[in-house]
Amino acid sequence: VQRLPNETGYEGWLRYRPASSSRRQEGYTAVCQRIVARGASEVLLSARRELGKGLGAILGRIPEFLVEPPVDGRYLGIGTVAEQWLLDALAVAGVPRPTGDGFVLFGQGHATAVFIVGGSDIGCLYGTFALLRRLQLGEDLPNGPVVERPAMALRMLDHWDNLDGSVERGYAGRSIFFARGEVVADRQRVLDYGRLLASIGVNAVALNNVNVAPGAMALPTKRHLGPLAALAGTFRSFGVRVFLSVAFEAPVVAGGLLTADPGSPEVARWWSQLAGGVYDYVPDLGGFLVKAGSESQPGPRVYGRTHADGANVIAAGLEPFGGTLLWRTFVYDCKQDWRDRSTDRAKAAFDEFLPLDGLFAPNVVLQVKSGPMDFQVREPPSPLLGAMANTSQTVEVQLSQEYTGQQVHLCYLVPAWKRALDFDTYASGTGSTVAKLVCGASSRTGMAGVANVGDDPNWTGHHLAQANLYGFGRLAWCPDLPAEQIAAEWAGLTFGPDPASADVVTEMLIASAPAYESYTTPLGLGWMVTPGSHYGPSPDGYEYSPWGTYHFADSVGIGVDRTTSHGTGFTAQYREPWKTIFEDPSTCPEDLLLFFHHLRYDFVLPGGTILVQRMYDRHFEGTAIAEDLLARWRSLAGCVDTVRYRAVEEKLAEQVRQAREWRDVINAYLYRKSGKNDENRRPVY
Amino acid sequence: VQRLPNETGYEGWLRYRPASSSRRQEGYTAVCQRIVARGASEVLLSARRELGKGLGAILGRIPEFLVEPPVDGRYLGIGTVAEQWLLDALAVAGVPRPTGDGFVLFGQGHATAVFIVGGSDIGCLYGTFALLRRLQLGEDLPNGPVVERPAMALRMLDHWDNLDGSVERGYAGRSIFFARGEVVADRQRVLDYGRLLASIGVNAVALNNVNVAPGAMALPTKRHLGPLAALAGTFRSFGVRVFLSVAFEAPVVAGGLLTADPGSPEVARWWSQLAGGVYDYVPDLGGFLVKAGSESQPGPRVYGRTHADGANVIAAGLEPFGGTLLWRTFVYDCKQDWRDRSTDRAKAAFDEFLPLDGLFAPNVVLQVKSGPMDFQVREPPSPLLGAMANTSQTVEVQLSQEYTGQQVHLCYLVPAWKRALDFDTYASGTGSTVAKLVCGASSRTGMAGVANVGDDPNWTGHHLAQANLYGFGRLAWCPDLPAEQIAAEWAGLTFGPDPASADVVTEMLIASAPAYESYTTPLGLGWMVTPGSHYGPSPDGYEYSPWGTYHFADSVGIGVDRTTSHGTGFTAQYREPWKTIFEDPSTCPEDLLLFFHHLRYDFVLPGGTILVQRMYDRHFEGTAIAEDLLARWRSLAGCVDTVRYRAVEEKLAEQVRQAREWRDVINAYLYRKSGKNDENRRPVY
Repeated sequence: VQRLPNETGYEGWLRYRPASSSRRQEGYTAVCQRIVARGASEVLLSARRELGKGLGAILGRIPEFLVEPPVDGRYLGIGTVAEQWLLDALAVAGVPRPTGDGFVLFGQGHATAVFIVGGSDIGCLYGTFALLRRLQLGEDLPNGPVVERPAMALRMLDHWDNLDGSVERGYAGRSIFFARGEVVADRQRVLDYGRLLASIGVNAVALNNVNVAPGAMALPTKRHLGPLAALAGTFRSFGVRVFLSVAFEAPVVAGGLLTADPGSPEVARWWSQLAGGVYDYVPDLGGFLVKAGSESQPGPRVYGRTHADGANVIAAGLEPFGGTLLWRTFVYDCKQDWRDRSTDRAKAAFDEFLPLDGLFAPNVVLQVKSGPMDFQVREPPSPLLGAMANTSQTVEVQLSQEYTGQQVHLCYLVPAWKRALDFDTYASGTGSTVAKLVCGASSRTGMAGVANVGDDPNWTGHHLAQANLYGFGRLAWCPDLPAEQIAAEWAGLTFGPDPASADVVTEMLIASAPAYESYTTPLGLGWMVTPGSHYGPSPDGYEYSPWGTYHFADSVGIGVDRTTSHGTGFTAQYREPWKTIFEDPSTCPEDLLLFFHHLRYDFVLPGGTILVQRMYDRHFEGTAIAEDLLARWRSLAGCVDTVRYRAVEEKLAEQVRQAREWRDVINAYLYRKSGKNDENRRPVY
Repeated sequence: VQRLPNETGYEGWLRYRPASSSRRQEGYTAVCQRIVARGASEVLLSARRELGKGLGAILGRIPEFLVEPPVDGRYLGIGTVAEQWLLDALAVAGVPRPTGDGFVLFGQGHATAVFIVGGSDIGCLYGTFALLRRLQLGEDLPNGPVVERPAMALRMLDHWDNLDGSVERGYAGRSIFFARGEVVADRQRVLDYGRLLASIGVNAVALNNVNVAPGAMALPTKRHLGPLAALAGTFRSFGVRVFLSVAFEAPVVAGGLLTADPGSPEVARWWSQLAGGVYDYVPDLGGFLVKAGSESQPGPRVYGRTHADGANVIAAGLEPFGGTLLWRTFVYDCKQDWRDRSTDRAKAAFDEFLPLDGLFAPNVVLQVKSGPMDFQVREPPSPLLGAMANTSQTVEVQLSQEYTGQQVHLCYLVPAWKRALDFDTYASGTGSTVAKLVCGASSRTGMAGVANVGDDPNWTGHHLAQANLYGFGRLAWCPDLPAEQIAAEWAGLTFGPDPASADVVTEMLIASAPAYESYTTPLGLGWMVTPGSHYGPSPDGYEYSPWGTYHFADSVGIGVDRTTSHGTGFTAQYREPWKTIFEDPSTCPEDLLLFFHHLRYDFVLPGGTILVQRMYDRHFEGTAIAEDLLARWRSLAGCVDTVRYRAVEEKLAEQVRQAREWRDVINAYLYRKSGKNDENRRPVY
């Protein structure tokens, strides 16, 4: 058996292995061994370097860079619509001009020449990665035009990195941006991260934690601005703009003012000066990201002001520089009394922000979590999405697997994100999907994802968790891509060229999230995690806590009654037909049943199974799938290099152990509450 | 209203306030203003200093030290039975000679002269503190002889202090012995602690955590021995001997050997050399304390050896120097499967150690926790106590309130310790109490308490938690002292001279533990604490964990069936009549009912109440007492200085909040499991 060379996973999906057959290689080489490129901007240089690196490996020889097309007409041309020779090539081929950061790939005369034409320098870079992806996947050189353009303007990763190098809810090592209170001086890792991001179209990064620790308040001050500017420069060469998280009370804590009242002219001046100071160093700063008035972070309420007041004063400081203020709507009372069943955390963001529609400055974007709670494995889409006709919104998802197995469990999240994007809000009639909303008019909206990356050699801890990073970028680029296609692309790039391995990995990815959901908290239950760590089962862990995250299981039934007729009234935040669908347990989707309803254990589900039995069944099924994930991976022994094989095997084996623990704990909990035996007499403790 | 001067609590119960009336003061002064003292050992000098300090404050004038009795015959004489003039005085008064570290206080001729005669220097020091206590409490100078002698040989406090200055399960600040990896250089605090200990008869201190962190392995090495010797010297002047905790695997981790196998001659040599090295610096070292083979600490099992093998090899190293090896029996499998109901952690110590009876070296003492689990508010006494006829045992209790409110809740623990000491094991027929066992033949046994002290200004965090420190020493000195008397002594010393304040505080202390037990986990339930922190309610927190701490509540009933007839068989570890008493729920004490039995919620208790109703009642009652503690304290406004008043008030108010939380969470939990309403329709959520 041929031993495959070991891989660390550091290259991610940009592994650039030689083409899978010599015939393929010859075909690629005939065209791509010579590259005609004239532009020399920073970003275009990144594209050229990537072509050199990628084609060099795929072809097995370093390509030659030329300024004029060679006489035999066999070459790869790259550049933007600002170059006449490429406009001519487009015209000859009858291909439409790319716009914005989009690109066109097309061939000329039976692919003797191939072109990457970008609507901008960044479009060229994206086109470069698109071409290299095709070649890595063993596809033909493009002939008919491939026209692409990012669907969303903002495709952003939010790092919850602290200045001390720790990462809040990070499961892949320490920060790649900060260490021991400083911005890192060695930017090699940042550069390699920038490449990965550009390859999937991500164009913005928030560097630091939205929970801004006191030390990080000083980030936008002189001391750190030099290194920050250098770091932003590294990202800039990959078309990635940098954002900073700032604290609402920064005027007091960092500025030494006596107030952070957004109504104070002094405070307005302070924010304006702060923004000016940063833009001096980072002229293309994306803007600021703020979490205010939530989870013990101070907010405008302290001063009797609204979130609009709070956001607008900071946004005003950014406005002259074209900066965006991202203001999170993850606002709720985290000191709730568990005894009080009338308060419903799910309702908080909608109640807080809806009355403010139209009051936010044009450069404010509300960053709305995809669900109304907090990144559970299953939630309904947030009713706030699309509810504010006159306010820009960006949808926020979480790559870092806080509640979804912490990069020990395999949990491919793209299908869940897609569910949120595909949700029809009916805000302006049928077809008003969340995707349409965030892809819409504004040049400032899109999708933000909490990053799952750290200084682990393979970036994400679990090798297969890279699929979520890849998938996030691809989905933000094109929300219409099927989750399966994204999985297959990633698997092919990461475990190819052997298509068998890629197929197995794809199947594993697709099976993973439903399995996780089933063996943890199916039917929309959520939250039965260990408090604090959010890892492992603890059925009552948050039940008597002040966090608003309950399931109200008693001897009769379980779930949260969020109906309008006799519950918290959360369903009324949805437009029809959702309100009616969610309101009635007979029409509510099974996967959200206990999110919306408190039901008896003997509630009969469609099909005749009673609720608690269905819960038992789901836990046994999910665990069986987890066991199957391990078995499938083991079928790849010898088809994947030893280092990656063993690392993934170890994680999957731990996942199986944990899945069994989840199954047994939750089933025992349900049994001990309900007194109902499993129909199939499987062990329930 | 007269404002009392503020106090920090640093003085503890050695406040030495002027006598409460001028008549009293004159009476004391007439005798005690002149002190005849001849000896000048370190310990006697401590006694003289204390007399100077104490009498100076009580009399309002510094006493005069003489070598010869003054001609008017009015003086305080102090010294040991080694001095002829005191033997003469004893003979004249017809008072028996004190022995060991005991003392006699007596007066001569209508108390014109008063004597403190010690069986040893340390006896003199103890007699000094006894006299000063009398005077502080406003009692008469002794006339008829007061003969005392410590009941237990070992009266020891175990500090769980780490070398970095942290304290495991400490709730009163940082370590007073260690900081930043070093033994402290400033020993003022140690000196003041030594005084406090001597005043209550404590004669041994283990300095460092039984969970020996890697850094602390180096404690008995050159680098630290100088400072350790200095610290031991400070303690020595108060009659306190120092012990060190060492790790079983120290030969490997600290010594660089390839094994810690107790059968290896090399390992025996290593321990011997280690002991020799320490005794060079601390010639009166008490010995070593070891936690092995438990809670992830390596033990002799690793090498196929018994605990006797493990203990004896270390003890052999100590033997030439007269040192004692204290070996903890807190040994159990902390990786238990919660699904397996046949394993019972309560049985572990007995099962592990009983077969080793008679195999331990003479200088090994087993340190046995008072209960079979781990310092819960209520447990039965450990059946291992008294079960090993040929092995020395010391009983271990916990002053630090790990499971009993963490020095936020008031919980006076002396009654619980007394319960353990008064327990009749029937080991050698009726009257074989635990107290008798540990007071018995061996000069190495007694009581060890996990210290509740840190660098907080008042030593124990909660001012009233000092009562547990005081009570520990007094009880080890004389287990026959009633808990109420100890409480009254401490309250009088700490809040006197106003007797009204002392009475209220005494009542509060006595009411406190029953209240805590009732509003947390009455009926022997235990363990419903937040995992990790062990603070606050979490009914299922340890239910699906590997720690062996379950209650098995389901829809029918609750409790652990530890009967021999159909449970884990734990009851069989007790001698009759206990075995029969505990085995039957109708004879088992209510306070231990759910420790020994799994009972239906509708089990009828003597008196007719059903189990779950009794649980509800206890929670409501306990919380009402907690509320009453606060009310009683508030009745002392103006009678206690403002600083201490406010500090205690704040803790008690927090206790009330927490008690209500406990009540509501546990009652809600029981209600949601059982479906049974409270008969009295009080709010259960």
